[in-house]
This record gives sequence, structure tokens and C-alpha cells, in this order.
Amino acid sequence: MHDERPIDDRFEEALRRAIDAQCGADCPPRLAAAMRHGVFPAGARVRPRLLLAVADAFAAPLDAGALDVAVAIELMHGASLVQDDLPCFDDAATRRAQPSVHAAFDERLAILASDGLIMAAYQRLAEAPGVPPRARLRLVTLLARHSGSNGGITGGQAWESEARVDLERYHAAKTGALFAACTEAGAVLGGAPVDALPEWAALGARVGAAYQIADDLKDATGDEAALGKPVNVDARLERPNATRQLGLEGATQRLRDHVAALLGAIPPCRRPERLQTAILVEA
Amino acid sequence: MHDERPIDDRFEEALRRAIDAQCGADCPPRLAAAMRHGVFPAGARVRPRLLLAVADAFAAPLDAGALDVAVAIELMHGASLVQDDLPCFDDAATRRAQPSVHAAFDERLAILASDGLIMAAYQRLAEAPGVPPRARLRLVTLLARHSGSNGGITGGQAWESEARVDLERYHAAKTGALFAACTEAGAVLGGAPVDALPEWAALGARVGAAYQIADDLKDATGDEAALGKPVNVDARLERPNATRQLGLEGATQRLRDHVAALLGAIPPCRRPERLQTAILVEA
Repeated sequence: MHDERPIDDRFEEALRRAIDAQCGADCPPRLAAAMRHGVFPAGARVRPRLLLAVADAFAAPLDAGALDVAVAIELMHGASLVQDDLPCFDDAATRRAQPSVHAAFDERLAILASDGLIMAAYQRLAEAPGVPPRARLRLVTLLARHSGSNGGITGGQAWESEARVDLERYHAAKTGALFAACTEAGAVLGGAPVDALPEWAALGARVGAAYQIADDLKDATGDEAALGKPVNVDARLERPNATRQLGLEGATQRLRDHVAALLGAIPPCRRPERLQTAILVEA
Repeated sequence: MHDERPIDDRFEEALRRAIDAQCGADCPPRLAAAMRHGVFPAGARVRPRLLLAVADAFAAPLDAGALDVAVAIELMHGASLVQDDLPCFDDAATRRAQPSVHAAFDERLAILASDGLIMAAYQRLAEAPGVPPRARLRLVTLLARHSGSNGGITGGQAWESEARVDLERYHAAKTGALFAACTEAGAVLGGAPVDALPEWAALGARVGAAYQIADDLKDATGDEAALGKPVNVDARLERPNATRQLGLEGATQRLRDHVAALLGAIPPCRRPERLQTAILVEA
């Protein structure tokens, strides 16, 4: 039976079901509340949209299995935001115009909520209905790789603890890696040949780079109330930021260049024009 | 070619290789050092020994695949210890007679090391050589479940944030769940029928309960230098502990009862007597 509801609504419902499954009778109530707080209300949901857009570019069905894979990425993203906001990292008291998880609960529950979201992400991938076993294993591996210490988002965050940091390498891991996971996972769902997957990951990394520059511009020029989170964080923490390095015009130019390059670099798929449109709408 | 070295040495080498794989050129050097610090030098390695003992009770080969599955559990355990020691949890400055990870590095690197170890655990399972795809998926699912918010170690830790806690339920999740993961994973490696897996998990939960009481006794009566970590932590943090609840004699009696019960509750396998011996040696 074909589900006629908009894909965004179906995604939110799949995410809600994923959280419900982790918050049963054996989940302490405050932890359950902290996990929900970490992923609701919805942020931009940029990553799952990108993932589903890639699967759609292969004309793959956007069914329960595809939605659960998109949910897994959003759970991992939510976990990373909960951690980023902690006092020992960005020390951000707000996120999505509400208190950040540690501000609403405490540091312990924030760390544990992040753990719970991470475990939920892997469980979703391993159990994604209708996705062939080998594809599910490939998805687990790619999420672990793009989230891990060696070039993944964990490694990216840890570059902030080094005395010398290469800005591109830092952003490629901290932000780009999870975008790469989205495009690679979308291509896995679409049945892309295994040797094409690195190209798909590279496309995601480029989308992430563009997104990061846009985010840096928002941090430097944005409005706290409109964004729902603190601004000027990078300057305050003396953290690398494209606007601080290149100036406003330089960063804007780099963003334009990135978007133009990536629209021309979509690997073979059945309906690349739909993916181009989706990327432009997000960026 | 059969590897003649003792299984403990082969396990340590597999663990070292797993960490090396996560600490390549794209891993920030301090994060790599923090991750190594989180799992070396070796603790008792109780969990991987239990897992391998169960696989061995099925006469399954203790090959590279089995070792990687045991490594995954130890990586997850290492991550949980790094978190437990954090200032917002136990605030423990030492572990295994050396500074805890946050004491040797800082809180940020401790949290990220824990993340890196978790991602590594899932990657090991998804890529375990020679293990059939469906078994690998089952292993990913069971690790996520036993580590997660709903009855897993994350949920267990979070019961400390609730006003009312049932002692058994708290320990069953905080300690028992990862032991349950060991016996269940060993049974998966051994090719146990799927409907026998809950019994195997239940056996592990019992081993974990025994181990927790032994640990509570050590916390109440042990020597800080010999244990390599602070003692009397539970009393200081007013945390549930079998010795505080039952007294020394009561806790010792309960430990004896637990061990006797679990030795009689080993589900069908080819050489239960070897598993009984292994459990007695550990307890």
C-alpha cells in the first residue's frame, strides 16, 4: 500500500517511532525525555532530506526501510549536537530556540542521551525493513566510519583539541563526514555499484563543505533569535571559521564556487536533475 | 593455518589492531592517545573471556572473526568506563592504576574517545571476517540493544538520575546488560538457534549480577592500590550497593547463591563443563 503523505511527515513519524522503541518500560523516564529533547522539535532535517534525495535520484522506493536509514543519520546528528552544546565543548545553553539538553536536564543525562541516540542509530540500520542484509551491513560500516575517530565527526570535533589544525580537514571531518554518510547511504539504498560509493561520499563531503561555509556565515552575521542558538560562538571560542579566515565576501564567494562545483559533480544515477534541485533548495 | 598463541595474547593483538585501524592519519593524535589510554593497559578482560568461553562451549573456532566480536564488546566496555569516570559521573581520577582518561587528557577528549571506541565497536561487528552476514547483523542489533537506553548500559547508568531506583533493575542494566551481550554474542558465533538466544542472554545477566555483587564487595572492602581505582565510591555518592543494602555477610551469601544458580542454568551446548569452569575461574 503506497503511503501518500508528504515525505517530511513520514520521516518525522519514523523518527518518533525510533525514539519510542528506545524509550520503553526499561528506559529511565528522564533519559527518555532527554533523548526526545535531543531530536524534537525538528531542526532543518537537512541530512535525512539529502539522503532521501539521493535514493530518489536512483528511483529507489522511499519506503519504511529508506526512512529508517534516514532516521539513523538524524539520530547520530542529534547525538553530536547534544555533545557539541555541552559545557566542555561549545557551552551553548540554547538550541532550536529551546534549552539545550544539558541545560534542560543536566550533563549526565545529556551524555547518556547522546549515547542512547547513537545506539538507536545502529539498531535502526541493522534492522531496516526490506533492505538486503549486505546493504544493511554496508550502512552500519559507513555510519561507523563517517562518525568515528579517523576522518569522521568524532575525529573532526577532536581537531579542536590540537594545537595545529588545517581548516579544510577539520570541516571535512566535523561537518562533511556525516553529509558524506548521507549521500553514500542514499546510493547504497539506490543499489549503486560498490565502486561508485566513494564518488557518492565525495559528493556529500562537498555538500557538507558548502553547508559549513553557510553555517559559518550565519554564525558571523546571523541573529540569535532567528537561528534559535547562540551566534558568534566561533569568534568567542577562537575557533576556525571561514568568515574569520576569508572575510564575508571571500566566504560568500567560496560558497558560490562550492555549490557550482558540486552540482556538476553528481555521479551517474537515473534522475540527476531532481537531485540538483534538491541540493539547491537545501543550500 | 592454526594460530598456536594463547587466546589472551591473540585477543590483545586483535584489540590493538582495532584501535590502530581507528587511529590512522585522519585521527587527531591526542584523540588517538586518549582512545588507547581507554583500553590499555589491559583490565581483567572479563567480558571478552566470557564471550569466547561461550563460543568455545559450542566448539566454534576462536578465529579472527570471533576475536573481533570479543574486541567489539571490550571497546564498548572501555567507552562506558571512560564515561563513568567523568567528573559529572563518578569523578574518578584513577583507573587501572593510572590516571583516568579525562584526568590524563581532558573532558572533551574523554567524551570523544568514548565516542570513537563506540563507533569502532560497531565497525568491528559489521566487518567481522568469516562471520555470516545475518549473524553480523544480529550482533550489531544485540550490541545496540544491550548498550542502549531501554535496559542496556546507557539506561542502567541513567537510573542514577531518577529519584526512585530498583536495585536489581539498575544493576541488571548497568552491569548485567553487557554480560548478556557477551553470552548472547558467543551463542550467535556458536550457531545457537535463534529461539535459544534469550536464554543465553539471561545466563549472561546472571553472570553480570554475580560480578556486580563481587564488585560491590570490592568497593566496600578492597584496597585502592590493589584495585587501581578509588574505593568506597558508592558510599560517597550514596549509590545503591549490595554491601550497603545487605551487609557484608548478606552480600557474600547472595554472591554464593548467584554463582550456584547460574552454573546450573547453562543452556544446551556441546561442552557445558568447559563453560562452567571458565565462569568459576572468572568469578
